[in-house]
Amino acid sequence: MGSASAGYPFGIASHCHGKIGAFSHKVQLFGTNFPLHVEFPRTNLYPSSASTITSKEIVTHICSLPDTGEFFPEEVSTPILDSVENPMHLKNLSIKELKQLSDEIRLELSSIMLKTRKSFKASLAVTELTVAIHHVFHAPVDKILWDAVEQTYAHKILTGRRNLIHTVRRNNDVSGSTSRPESEYDPFGAGHGCNSVSAGLGMAIARDIKGKRECIVTVISNGTTMAGQVYEAMGNAGYLDSNMVVILNDSRHSLHPKIEEGPKTSISALSSTLSKLQSSKSFRKFREVAKDVTKRIGMHELAAKVDEYARGMVGPLGATLFEELGLYYIGPVDGHNIEDLICVLQQVASLNSMGPVLIHVITEENRGVENNPKLDGAYKQQEDQAGLNGSDGLRSKIHHRTYSDCFVEALVVEAEQDKDIVAVHAGMHMETSFELLRERFPDKFFDVGMAEQHAVTFSAGLSRGGLKPFCIIPSAFLQRAYDQVVHDVDRQRIPVRFVITSAGLVGSDGPMHCGAFDITFMSCLPNMIVMAPSNEDELANMVATAACIDDRPVCFRYPRGAIVGMDQSICIGMPIEIGKGKVLAEGKDVALLGYGSMVQNCLKARSLLSKLGIEVTVADARFCKPFDIKLLRQLCENHSFLITVEEGSIGGFGSHVAQFFALDGQLDGKIKWRPIVLPDNYIEHASPSEQLAIAGLTGHHIAATALSLLGRNREALHLMC
Amino acid sequence: MGSASAGYPFGIASHCHGKIGAFSHKVQLFGTNFPLHVEFPRTNLYPSSASTITSKEIVTHICSLPDTGEFFPEEVSTPILDSVENPMHLKNLSIKELKQLSDEIRLELSSIMLKTRKSFKASLAVTELTVAIHHVFHAPVDKILWDAVEQTYAHKILTGRRNLIHTVRRNNDVSGSTSRPESEYDPFGAGHGCNSVSAGLGMAIARDIKGKRECIVTVISNGTTMAGQVYEAMGNAGYLDSNMVVILNDSRHSLHPKIEEGPKTSISALSSTLSKLQSSKSFRKFREVAKDVTKRIGMHELAAKVDEYARGMVGPLGATLFEELGLYYIGPVDGHNIEDLICVLQQVASLNSMGPVLIHVITEENRGVENNPKLDGAYKQQEDQAGLNGSDGLRSKIHHRTYSDCFVEALVVEAEQDKDIVAVHAGMHMETSFELLRERFPDKFFDVGMAEQHAVTFSAGLSRGGLKPFCIIPSAFLQRAYDQVVHDVDRQRIPVRFVITSAGLVGSDGPMHCGAFDITFMSCLPNMIVMAPSNEDELANMVATAACIDDRPVCFRYPRGAIVGMDQSICIGMPIEIGKGKVLAEGKDVALLGYGSMVQNCLKARSLLSKLGIEVTVADARFCKPFDIKLLRQLCENHSFLITVEEGSIGGFGSHVAQFFALDGQLDGKIKWRPIVLPDNYIEHASPSEQLAIAGLTGHHIAATALSLLGRNREALHLMC
Repeated sequence: MGSASAGYPFGIASHCHGKIGAFSHKVQLFGTNFPLHVEFPRTNLYPSSASTITSKEIVTHICSLPDTGEFFPEEVSTPILDSVENPMHLKNLSIKELKQLSDEIRLELSSIMLKTRKSFKASLAVTELTVAIHHVFHAPVDKILWDAVEQTYAHKILTGRRNLIHTVRRNNDVSGSTSRPESEYDPFGAGHGCNSVSAGLGMAIARDIKGKRECIVTVISNGTTMAGQVYEAMGNAGYLDSNMVVILNDSRHSLHPKIEEGPKTSISALSSTLSKLQSSKSFRKFREVAKDVTKRIGMHELAAKVDEYARGMVGPLGATLFEELGLYYIGPVDGHNIEDLICVLQQVASLNSMGPVLIHVITEENRGVENNPKLDGAYKQQEDQAGLNGSDGLRSKIHHRTYSDCFVEALVVEAEQDKDIVAVHAGMHMETSFELLRERFPDKFFDVGMAEQHAVTFSAGLSRGGLKPFCIIPSAFLQRAYDQVVHDVDRQRIPVRFVITSAGLVGSDGPMHCGAFDITFMSCLPNMIVMAPSNEDELANMVATAACIDDRPVCFRYPRGAIVGMDQSICIGMPIEIGKGKVLAEGKDVALLGYGSMVQNCLKARSLLSKLGIEVTVADARFCKPFDIKLLRQLCENHSFLITVEEGSIGGFGSHVAQFFALDGQLDGKIKWRPIVLPDNYIEHASPSEQLAIAGLTGHHIAATALSLLGRNREALHLMC
Repeated sequence: MGSASAGYPFGIASHCHGKIGAFSHKVQLFGTNFPLHVEFPRTNLYPSSASTITSKEIVTHICSLPDTGEFFPEEVSTPILDSVENPMHLKNLSIKELKQLSDEIRLELSSIMLKTRKSFKASLAVTELTVAIHHVFHAPVDKILWDAVEQTYAHKILTGRRNLIHTVRRNNDVSGSTSRPESEYDPFGAGHGCNSVSAGLGMAIARDIKGKRECIVTVISNGTTMAGQVYEAMGNAGYLDSNMVVILNDSRHSLHPKIEEGPKTSISALSSTLSKLQSSKSFRKFREVAKDVTKRIGMHELAAKVDEYARGMVGPLGATLFEELGLYYIGPVDGHNIEDLICVLQQVASLNSMGPVLIHVITEENRGVENNPKLDGAYKQQEDQAGLNGSDGLRSKIHHRTYSDCFVEALVVEAEQDKDIVAVHAGMHMETSFELLRERFPDKFFDVGMAEQHAVTFSAGLSRGGLKPFCIIPSAFLQRAYDQVVHDVDRQRIPVRFVITSAGLVGSDGPMHCGAFDITFMSCLPNMIVMAPSNEDELANMVATAACIDDRPVCFRYPRGAIVGMDQSICIGMPIEIGKGKVLAEGKDVALLGYGSMVQNCLKARSLLSKLGIEVTVADARFCKPFDIKLLRQLCENHSFLITVEEGSIGGFGSHVAQFFALDGQLDGKIKWRPIVLPDNYIEHASPSEQLAIAGLTGHHIAATALSLLGRNREALHLMC
């Protein structure tokens, strides 16, 4: 629960949009984990009437932004970095050179950040740490695992992917994550967060069984310490007692703006623990072993350094969280003191039979930026633009309201009428749209961070306490709470309203955050009402409908990105009849039955087909469960061909239609049915329209399917050329 | 990883079974969380040749066991308990009477335990705690949440369900869990463990928002502290700082037999923390507040008592795990000292604005049993019989090998040939069958307890480290790791072999542990090979097949319970061709295509139909993904009717068949297809055969479907009468 300053420009948008003019507009952005207070002039960027702008025009406007060269006229000089092709080349560098290398990487990243307009802040924070890790450990033999993509750009630069990062914008990202196919230096794929300790422990045990000796190093962030899996993994690591190094990169910012009041310094009480740890320097056992070993090998100086970190033992053994989970704690270490980092890492690397060790490293994301006016300018520029380019960026906010914006507007309307409505949010990041909710209902909006399992059961508890929770989770992350949805909500028939965001393909986030499976895994649950809006008005209707349903759980999904219409008025919904679809257009040759956003593509297919003289019915199913039996029978009666279309995997809407049709005898020669679903593979990152084309879900694909169903194969082929 | 003593009678079974005779047989059972060394004579119970026995005979033998009355001739006298109809009646009882009430409940539970042959040990441990909770708090206004069913029987006795528990056997269990429909004293359903803190926090927040004042009390066990969700919930509870009481019932036994060596005292390092906590009595803040409050209201004596528990403060604030998560820690409290329990609970209940409090209560499961010869006898009897009646009991072990037995046998054969094979197990309990794995490969068997998310990613790490992990998780609990299956395994195409146990209906465990959804949620994943054996030989083949597949993930499911055949020889599998089904019997009228265990019911339907002169083809699909296209087309060519049968929800095997058929044009009048799946509701606890009948999955149901498809409705009806 956070308090945000006023002047939030989107959300209840009509009056705001009307005000766009010659004055600067204060914006608060939370898209990249930290609050940015940005002021920028609008006059030259956007015309006064937002509603008349086309997306093409916006691109032009974006392109007419002051060129990044204004801030960064000269090429960045990186002599040491230029000599580093792979981590091997770090081995013989002196501390001084490593320091310079870190500075060069920071400079390089800032430069790329400017060019690509992507935030590399988390990677800037771990620049020295990354250099130290690659100096001390021997990747790819030693395994370095990260669990947050944002931290890995320095790692990618040092492991042969420097050029790839330079073209990050052109390629729609290097890759969304560390990725095994991309590099031998990425031993495990990351992306959903919190998996690196589990995977690292597996590798450590495999190493022990195979009698090998490589080191396993996993880096976690304080964001990940909210996720339950990390505790499961650390507890098991402590038990299995295999050698591995867990580095906690503590940038001391939580996922959300901090509230300076009492114990609520962050979203999770744990974060405050991290600061406590700093005054509690314990690690006697490690210190003793380290002392012993270093004495034997005569590195008194190094031993003294380690001792410095490990000195003192406050409280009993197991006094800290991590030690109680069975990991030996070292820290806190200054994450920007490369000498200390190397010293500690070398000690840890040289010790056998230490079991799992946790090194607590304190980093700062703005390190090196404040004192460097050139970087500072670049940085500010980047911050200004962060909102303009991210998937939830300002560009889309002002000119293209997203489904999330409309959802929030509709929910605000409902929540103002019904005091029992509360919202719970979980996931790695929170879309900026939801800030409005936090602002309007600070005591009724609960963002639990990367704790999806808890979010779902917590919502069930809120519901049992007499409230009406809307539980907002991106499709890909709802996967993390599936059992809670089944066991704590659906089986108990508790009215929780699941708002499944980022449903379907997600463009530049590729397969990592793709929400392909939710229709399938939600609609098989006995008590769940499953629906999907075809546009923003329907979304508002479904919010109103969900608010009314109070005897069972309900879910609805909507895609990432811009809404269909250009109407800027607030979405106010009306409850719709449960299980009622609707016919949008009538024809006699083929029926297209769309689910969710695919209804729009069915309409596109219709207009393509009408040019070929084919009369098409388009129906919006609205509900996957319970679906509109009357509508389905009616479509069967009046058509010989039916195509169902959904942006989801097999087993979802189409399968439910097929099941009903089969049991109803409709497939016994009455109607020819063709299902269009997401293909049976992971679709790599690309633009949303490219992804839709790859998936075969465009209007053209649907029209071509209809044509070939009608036996007009040549025209179908022609349409796809 | 555990070491078990020799003499384990099942598993590699043929030679053991041959030895059954007049001598007593030493058995080690782990079915109920604790190792029992049981000796009992076999002579009178079982004939020398196990293979000739029918299940009917076994029932007779079980019934001819010495009557429980031999140990418990007189009726248990429970004068105080008799006067308690609901928790209100506890309010005016003195400490002495409450002590006696606890003893009476213990006696009652032991008595029921004998009669029903169910283990109530966990409830025996919390008898005083339950009495104290209900004495201090005011249920149902105050909410008492449990997260392990086993702990709740004393609670059920005190909340109007005493008679229901007496008939526990007849009713196939009171209910598998605390259950909202069953009682107003159960505010939230439990069963999968680890959900009570999340749900309780939701209720606490709802109470605050609604301006109410009831208390929220949640009881967790040290088993649940392995599960990540508990940490997510506690972290969020610490942050939100709402009043609630979390009671940790620490019975100091882990899920598994302890190994007395070094730090590995339990499955999770955390358990050892719990013992450490006992020497670290901290809680200064609580003590101060408590002192202050009690002084004001003049309860000096009580204050002194609380002070006793809270005295001393070792280390800084936040020294313990729970305090670092933001909960105030009180303890350890003797869970059998009812005076102390009441005192602490009363203090906690009387304090406002305390935020979340964790009370650490130490209990013993054998408390009160050792010193009571009568109870002791009853107890031993119960322990002896525990193996005879549980779902994984000895009865089934000796006379009915289970699918799990055969799986273990087959895996042992594979693991002996391939040194890279390892096994990971997760879930609330471990089936006794898997002890053989632990025994044979103590260094390659990893039971991580209730940490399914970790188990899956850990397996992925093992695989990346060059090993061949088999990851064994019951279907219902695999739901808890779905995102890890998607993100950490399938998307990265890492060869992890998922062994999905307890698939489909699970008899007396009802809907709580029913594995209904796995076919659906696994077969939509692009890289996953999904298969299911139709009998134990096929299971062994699939183990061998999975061991061979090393380029992508694979899963196979098998049901709980006894295998099909009576052959006692070890299952040794041969790899089968991927995506290859097989025809078991040929006919011309109807084709039945079964998936997994339902193939057997298809065969039963075939024999029913053959009596009516209908010739039926039965095919075993074996693979849901990729399935046998050739076989499917062949069935379409040779038949007009096809029925697919699976013990799973909609969206699974049948849906994949429909999708293929539709795209292949087979449903355009070529074949009439009917899918039989689990019905769209949760099936309550009953015997396996009753559940199958309710689900409509028996041979009779399949035959009736075929008959009505052939237009012979009258015969279909007749068949079902």
